[in-house]
Amino acid sequence: MSLFNIAVCQMKVTDSKKDNISRATKMIGEAVRNNKANIIVLPEMFNCPYDTRVMTEYAEEYNGETCETLSSVAKELDVYIVGGSIPEKCDGKIYNTSFIFDNKGRIIGRHRKVHLFDVDIENGIKFKESDVLSPGDELTIVETKYCKIGVGICYDMRFPEMMRAMALSGADVIVVPAAFNMTTGPAHWDSLIKIRAVDNQVYFVAASPARNLEANYVAYGYSSILNPWGQPIGQATEQEGIICSTIDLEYIRKIREELPLLKNQSKILYNQRGDEF
Amino acid sequence: MSLFNIAVCQMKVTDSKKDNISRATKMIGEAVRNNKANIIVLPEMFNCPYDTRVMTEYAEEYNGETCETLSSVAKELDVYIVGGSIPEKCDGKIYNTSFIFDNKGRIIGRHRKVHLFDVDIENGIKFKESDVLSPGDELTIVETKYCKIGVGICYDMRFPEMMRAMALSGADVIVVPAAFNMTTGPAHWDSLIKIRAVDNQVYFVAASPARNLEANYVAYGYSSILNPWGQPIGQATEQEGIICSTIDLEYIRKIREELPLLKNQSKILYNQRGDEF
Repeated sequence: MSLFNIAVCQMKVTDSKKDNISRATKMIGEAVRNNKANIIVLPEMFNCPYDTRVMTEYAEEYNGETCETLSSVAKELDVYIVGGSIPEKCDGKIYNTSFIFDNKGRIIGRHRKVHLFDVDIENGIKFKESDVLSPGDELTIVETKYCKIGVGICYDMRFPEMMRAMALSGADVIVVPAAFNMTTGPAHWDSLIKIRAVDNQVYFVAASPARNLEANYVAYGYSSILNPWGQPIGQATEQEGIICSTIDLEYIRKIREELPLLKNQSKILYNQRGDEF
Repeated sequence: MSLFNIAVCQMKVTDSKKDNISRATKMIGEAVRNNKANIIVLPEMFNCPYDTRVMTEYAEEYNGETCETLSSVAKELDVYIVGGSIPEKCDGKIYNTSFIFDNKGRIIGRHRKVHLFDVDIENGIKFKESDVLSPGDELTIVETKYCKIGVGICYDMRFPEMMRAMALSGADVIVVPAAFNMTTGPAHWDSLIKIRAVDNQVYFVAASPARNLEANYVAYGYSSILNPWGQPIGQATEQEGIICSTIDLEYIRKIREELPLLKNQSKILYNQRGDEF
């Protein structure tokens, strides 16, 4: 199937898990009914404030309330869901995890954020995920009936080697639930997601929470869907809302043929060096 | 030395090699006198039209007229020169090569473009460097008295793995003589150079020829110098001119400490996969 629709539900996340889950459910329904979405993406930490002090309290196992709800909704609406991310509890550790559901409600992938957000910018954002979270150590690429989808979470997309590895592993679409903030958002968001799409010649889907000025951590918003030439084909504002765009796999083939970046990689140079990233 | 100045001479390149060399010499002199430049960067193919049909005719060996002139000028003016690029003749092959001179006029580095520009974009640019040129197979990082400088040429900067390898090898500044065109320039130039600076937390210097509407291949212009936060601290227009900016090595340390991208790379993920790029 060469054409299909991906939607991002840029929802406002509050400190009520119950409200967050029901808001996600409602918006998923709208995206299916109004936008004819085939695949739906939720934002990073959509059921929980992005705050290390509460992540343990909100954490669930893979079969907890949040995943059970997403699974039911996916099955009921016959839609794939990249479930943003939630704090996942497993074997005494907490991860920032994206569970991915097929249209029968089955979990077909689980991405645990690999690169934890530990930053301290003067007059800007300070955050230390590693105070609470453990890092994942796997690249996540899921097979859907439409295409292969690579999934990273937020800070993961700062690492070009990871995005590249997904494209080289066959991803046609890279999806990144991400909560940039009011320091890094204005500084880097637009250009970063554009160049990830351009470098890897993929459709790139970045899913942020809506900007909630009452939250402790204020997400930037501006969820976007870019085509493999780097053009935004869907873009939210800072407000809550749904964006939905059509993915055209043939266009990926065309771009990769015209500007053959993936083919033109210098195997000689990189093999010689044996770089391990 | 934590502070020093880098200039780009965005010169208009014509089909007269003699004029191109003398124009380069004149602009280097101005950059030293007027801008107090310590390191000077020339554009890609600054002595020759960017046209595969003439590159063989214009090609020189490392000790030809062009390099001899740059060597003399570097010594006379006590300035480092990243000599853009020229068609280099060596052992029966032609390369797109940047010779780098220290302030004594000695060649301290030679970068042969690794990734040849072979593209064919519908309603846009068509070009095939590999018709005439052979590719290089080495990463180029030169030691100067100011810092380590990584050098790539144009299409090389499309490859994030190459830019990353330079940063991991200790480059504080990445210099890329580059002639983007009227298809790829408006589409990608600004964001691409910004994100190369941001990802690798380096000063990034992109040196284009001025836009020459009479040329067969029309270069985009907009030579730029960006700081490690991705802000342009020097930018030309499409016209001929010199830009010069101060590089602050302490600022690199600060950014790399605040947003520790190079440190936060997941060694676990990439070692497991043994990716060779």
